[in-house]
Amino acid sequence: VEKSNKKISGEVIKRLPRYYRYLGDLKKSGLTKISSTELSRRMNVTPSQIRQDLNCFGGFGQQGYGYNIENLYNSIGKILGLDSTVDTVIIGAGNLGSALANYKGFESRGFKLIGIFDTSSEKIGTIIADCEVLPLQDLEDFCKKNMPKIAMITVPKGAASEVAEYAAKCGIKGFLNFTYTDVTVPEGVAVENMHISDHLMMLSYKTQNM
Amino acid sequence: VEKSNKKISGEVIKRLPRYYRYLGDLKKSGLTKISSTELSRRMNVTPSQIRQDLNCFGGFGQQGYGYNIENLYNSIGKILGLDSTVDTVIIGAGNLGSALANYKGFESRGFKLIGIFDTSSEKIGTIIADCEVLPLQDLEDFCKKNMPKIAMITVPKGAASEVAEYAAKCGIKGFLNFTYTDVTVPEGVAVENMHISDHLMMLSYKTQNM
Repeated sequence: VEKSNKKISGEVIKRLPRYYRYLGDLKKSGLTKISSTELSRRMNVTPSQIRQDLNCFGGFGQQGYGYNIENLYNSIGKILGLDSTVDTVIIGAGNLGSALANYKGFESRGFKLIGIFDTSSEKIGTIIADCEVLPLQDLEDFCKKNMPKIAMITVPKGAASEVAEYAAKCGIKGFLNFTYTDVTVPEGVAVENMHISDHLMMLSYKTQNM
Repeated sequence: VEKSNKKISGEVIKRLPRYYRYLGDLKKSGLTKISSTELSRRMNVTPSQIRQDLNCFGGFGQQGYGYNIENLYNSIGKILGLDSTVDTVIIGAGNLGSALANYKGFESRGFKLIGIFDTSSEKIGTIIADCEVLPLQDLEDFCKKNMPKIAMITVPKGAASEVAEYAAKCGIKGFLNFTYTDVTVPEGVAVENMHISDHLMMLSYKTQNM
C-alpha cells in the first residue's frame, strides 16, 4: 500500500520521525488500531493533518476502524530506511561522543554503532561501548570494508569542517553534526545539525518573552 | 538602536542564534565590520534576507561601511537574554547528562551549570564537572534559593514527563528535552526538543533519497 517516495513533500517527511516514535510507543503498549482522532489527540495535531500526512504514502485508515498501528509503523520505518540496519560511526571520542556511543536507544531504532574514531593518541585503542577507538586516518579503509552510512561528528568546532570533508570523501553519506559550527559537505551528502547551544539560546529568549 | 522585541517575528528569532554564532566567530577573528554581502556569503543566505532580519531589531548597516560586528553581536545577545548569565541545571546524571555537564562551551555562551540532579542513590553525592549530584527531591529548595531558569532533561524517556512537570512546579521556565519522547509543560513554560533519534531518521531518509 505504498506509493512512490518521490511524491512525499519535505514537510511531511520532517514529521515522519515523530509519527514513527508515537506509533512505536502505541505498538509497545499492545494496541493494534488507532483512529486519526485519537492519534491526533495524543500527538497534539489536527486529525485532518494526520489523515493528509498519512495518505501521502498510502497509510489509509479504514472508516470506523482506524489505522493498523503495526502496518503504519512498518511503512513509515521503510520510508525512513529503518527496515534494515543503518551502520553508523562516531568521529570524536570525547565526552559527548562517548555518551552517544553508550546510548542504547539508537540501536533499538536501527542505528548500529560500528566504529569510533579520534586523532588523540590517548583515546586511540581505548574501548567505548564495545568499540575500539580507531585512528581517524583509518576511516578510509574502514569505510571500504564496512560501508557505514552515517557519522555523528563530536569533534572540537575548529576541526569539524575538515573532518566532514574527509569523511565524505571516504564515503559517508550523512552527518549528524553536534559541533558549534556549520559544516559544508559535497553535493549528495546530507547534514542534520544538533546545535545544542542554538536551542539553549532560543530557550533563553522564550523564557524572557513568554 | 534597539526596537521593542515584541515586533520581531518568530521566524527571525529562530535565526538569531545562528547570526550570534557567526558574529561571535567574526569578532574572535579580530574583524570589526562586515558588509551584508560578505556576511551572506559566509552564512549562505541572501544579502536581502540578512538586511531584512537585522533591520527588525535596529541592526542597520551603514552604506559603504557595513555592520559593526561587536554592536550587532551584543544587540543579538541582549535580545536572546545572554547579556547576563543564564543559570542552568541538568536533571539526569547518566552518560549524556555528564557529557553535557563537562562541555565547557555552554558557559562561554552565558549558560552556567549550577546544579545536577538524579534519583539514583549511586549517582547522588558524586561530583560531575565540579557539581555535586543532588537528589531530585531537593530541586524545589534549590530553586527557591538559586532560581535557575533552564533545565536540560536527560532522564530515561519513561520519567521525562513527570520530571518536567515537577521541575516546572519548582519554577524552571525552560526545558531542553533530550529524551526520546515529547514532554508537556504548563502555560508560560518553554520546551526545545533535541530529539537525536528523529534527526538520525531524517538523515537515514536523506541518504537514501538524495
